Amino acid sequence: MLSTLRGPSRALARKVSIPVTSKIQQARPIHNTVRKHAAAAANIAVDSVSSYEPFFPNEPSRPSVKTEIPGPKSKVAITELDEVFDTRSLNMICDYENSIGNYVSDHDHNVLLDVYAQIASIPIGYNNPALSAVASSPEMLTALINRPALGNFPPASWMNTLKSGILSVAPKGLNQVFTGMSGSDANECAYKAAFMYHRRKERGEGAPFTEEELQSAMNNQKPGSPELAIMSFKKGFHGRLFGSLSTTRSKPIHKIDIPSFNWPQARFPQLKYPLEEFVAENQAEEAACIAEVEEVLTKWHCPVSAVVIEPIQSEGGDFHASPKFFQDLRAVTQKHNVLLIVDEVQTGVGATGKFWAHDHWNLPSPPDIVTFSKKAQTAGYYFGNPQLRPNMAYRQFNTWMGDPARVLLFNTIIKEVERLNLVQHTAETGDYLYNGLAELSKKYPGEIQNLRGKGQGTFIAWDSPQRDAFLKKMKTVGVNIGGSGESAVRLRPMLIFQKHHADILLESIEKIIKA
Amino acid sequence: MLSTLRGPSRALARKVSIPVTSKIQQARPIHNTVRKHAAAAANIAVDSVSSYEPFFPNEPSRPSVKTEIPGPKSKVAITELDEVFDTRSLNMICDYENSIGNYVSDHDHNVLLDVYAQIASIPIGYNNPALSAVASSPEMLTALINRPALGNFPPASWMNTLKSGILSVAPKGLNQVFTGMSGSDANECAYKAAFMYHRRKERGEGAPFTEEELQSAMNNQKPGSPELAIMSFKKGFHGRLFGSLSTTRSKPIHKIDIPSFNWPQARFPQLKYPLEEFVAENQAEEAACIAEVEEVLTKWHCPVSAVVIEPIQSEGGDFHASPKFFQDLRAVTQKHNVLLIVDEVQTGVGATGKFWAHDHWNLPSPPDIVTFSKKAQTAGYYFGNPQLRPNMAYRQFNTWMGDPARVLLFNTIIKEVERLNLVQHTAETGDYLYNGLAELSKKYPGEIQNLRGKGQGTFIAWDSPQRDAFLKKMKTVGVNIGGSGESAVRLRPMLIFQKHHADILLESIEKIIKA
Repeated sequence: MLSTLRGPSRALARKVSIPVTSKIQQARPIHNTVRKHAAAAANIAVDSVSSYEPFFPNEPSRPSVKTEIPGPKSKVAITELDEVFDTRSLNMICDYENSIGNYVSDHDHNVLLDVYAQIASIPIGYNNPALSAVASSPEMLTALINRPALGNFPPASWMNTLKSGILSVAPKGLNQVFTGMSGSDANECAYKAAFMYHRRKERGEGAPFTEEELQSAMNNQKPGSPELAIMSFKKGFHGRLFGSLSTTRSKPIHKIDIPSFNWPQARFPQLKYPLEEFVAENQAEEAACIAEVEEVLTKWHCPVSAVVIEPIQSEGGDFHASPKFFQDLRAVTQKHNVLLIVDEVQTGVGATGKFWAHDHWNLPSPPDIVTFSKKAQTAGYYFGNPQLRPNMAYRQFNTWMGDPARVLLFNTIIKEVERLNLVQHTAETGDYLYNGLAELSKKYPGEIQNLRGKGQGTFIAWDSPQRDAFLKKMKTVGVNIGGSGESAVRLRPMLIFQKHHADILLESIEKIIKA
Repeated sequence: MLSTLRGPSRALARKVSIPVTSKIQQARPIHNTVRKHAAAAANIAVDSVSSYEPFFPNEPSRPSVKTEIPGPKSKVAITELDEVFDTRSLNMICDYENSIGNYVSDHDHNVLLDVYAQIASIPIGYNNPALSAVASSPEMLTALINRPALGNFPPASWMNTLKSGILSVAPKGLNQVFTGMSGSDANECAYKAAFMYHRRKERGEGAPFTEEELQSAMNNQKPGSPELAIMSFKKGFHGRLFGSLSTTRSKPIHKIDIPSFNWPQARFPQLKYPLEEFVAENQAEEAACIAEVEEVLTKWHCPVSAVVIEPIQSEGGDFHASPKFFQDLRAVTQKHNVLLIVDEVQTGVGATGKFWAHDHWNLPSPPDIVTFSKKAQTAGYYFGNPQLRPNMAYRQFNTWMGDPARVLLFNTIIKEVERLNLVQHTAETGDYLYNGLAELSKKYPGEIQNLRGKGQGTFIAWDSPQRDAFLKKMKTVGVNIGGSGESAVRLRPMLIFQKHHADILLESIEKIIKA
């Protein structure tokens, strides 16, 4: 079998094995007729389906749906759970012990191909053996049971933990990291760093705080609590705590009834698709948005310390912009001495076919701060300018400052991504998947509108006229798939998503569209 | 040996064993002369030193300091670490593998009695065998490597995880929990719940959001982003993210240069010690503070949705108030239809000799919300009123909504606290320790001022004229001890802190005072 495989797939298949016990059936190479059917369904030549050897040899070959979802066992469990937990946002009750690789099992043992992956936060598969190994290691044991207050009492191993893992993938030009707990936490700590940096520059290096500043800060009044802003973009999402929520502009349900800072926003480009048909219009749209940014930066009622932006707006509806737009944004922020914070919470760690999505932009100078979480299983922000370390101790500090247990998982994820070349793999699988979707979009233009994400790995989306119904129906054919914004279907498969999974996904989409 | 022990200590000694490998010497029962010396040093009759059988049989019998702190190995490590991590707040480089029970080892193998415990966040000792067991369990494995987006895809086990653990210790009158990542996160989610509840009452049950609200919220403007406030107390500490920091009033270094909400504060009682000498003055002080609360609640420029308070102000300087003060606070918040949020992030989980510090107050009705973190190893907020679940899905939501791995640790901590009766134990050890400190305070009144925390378990503090120097010198005699506020020495030992540890602590304090 292995001898028939080419290149990286062969190496991958050889290296991954699954030590966990699973009730899921042993994997079989996908049957040739299925292969042909899937390819045919997507109008793809069979020979473009290069290899089906799975990263997870024990993965099922197909989804398996035996009951409605939620099924009878899940319904009982949901009713019971609702007594102590808000189940109104519940999607599926999962059985993680019996999930594997790209396949998630629910409580009724329905097994679904998962291209939503815990809101884009599972990178290398359920019950990944490498994660299983680090989770069972002595390092993990001590990280779990002896949780340090890192800022005061770091373990001797902390330098190596940072250097050998989390910092080894620091975005180009950045070499420092501040670890945190979640995407919101990472963004808010980044905002705090930006504000302290802003005042440091204003105050002048070495200048002490004034007595008025020290006293007014205790009363939440200026000048100690200054009027400074973070600018974000319409439809952006940066989290749900008070500072991050003030920059979130995705949906009213995220924001209503919560007090917020009077911070500004600019329009994010609303590109028209297919891109090649709207080149001039899209260029004009991006230029208009950059002009709006400059307007805000120069005319807002208070200084703007930083601009925060997602490389691809995710929660808000999967909106993309060109590298040129981001280059111009970098230029305009530099022109006005405003920091650029790139929020890679959802885009980071490989899904766009680069380790960091902003690697696609070829910026002449790096962003000032890059935040991350989700697939990293931990969170934090990277920076390079040493002055972004505040000028005194205890200004950027909290009890835990992250979780070393979760950092160990990220470090293992990084090693697996490198060992299996998963970023390049995702770029290739993404292209394959995008091409299949483009074919479907030609065939069913009313059903797959504004297909986007070409060349962005598997970070692909389209608008669906009856999106919520579509997502629900996809479960009936064994695919767990998510939406974003008002009408987008967003694909967020894992980095171990392969072409044979893409075939199943394409086949399933067509099945639902036809039905 | 065991046959000479009485009561619970015997049971404890029998039940705990240490499976971890440790370079630390095997424990010996503390030597009789040491015992007598320690007791004598604190003017305590030897027979009140009831038993010395340690919870951790492998704990060292004494601290052991071989080098200056930081020692030569630590100094090298700190220099290396500083390249990638801000070490200005660093206290000790720790060797957690070689720490055990109440004793923390540093990188030079100095072994210190730890009464600071990772800023009050280690509950049942370093390398606790019960935590070691759960950290090695199949449940932990799946919680670590298959991290769920809990609000969408909870595991079938989640109901039981909540019910059998975290909810089994819900404060009296509260039966729901929302899990989070940190104390700041817990408080901010509680504030959001309070704001949504406030507007729900104003709007009327079942009334929809208006179009104006929906649109203005997206622009961070009222009425969608309303002007509402959380009231906190001077010297209070509730975290460092933007909403929580707006309620934090501990020190300027926590707040300066960070924009904040224009939210109000009232004075927290500044009691005089010893309490029995200032009964009338302290009553007047507390009444004045309650009057100030009422003034704020009725006259602030915008409605106050909730009051947040620590049972014992910790970070700000260890300030206590009487049960009467808190009863009056409950009454005044109810009178004005304002929620009472009790922040038990530092006081919770047993350290005050009750599981929750507010159990000391005998409130006629429970607080509306109680937040927790630190010793819980996870975080979140408890509530009882079903209307504190927002009226729609996705209003209180985020990707992870806590970390099931850390919740499993809390559940085990709860079981150990119950099995070993550690709350009652801490109440007793705290009384013993307080009495010893009271004797020292009489002997050295200039060195131990305003001793406080009587009847509050081991949650004890005093003011020291040269606090920072005192904390540093305590390391030379093998005690890791923390401060709070401007001048307080704060004791935050673990729940497994025993009388023989108290003797060592008392002896060490006297040694430093004498020197």
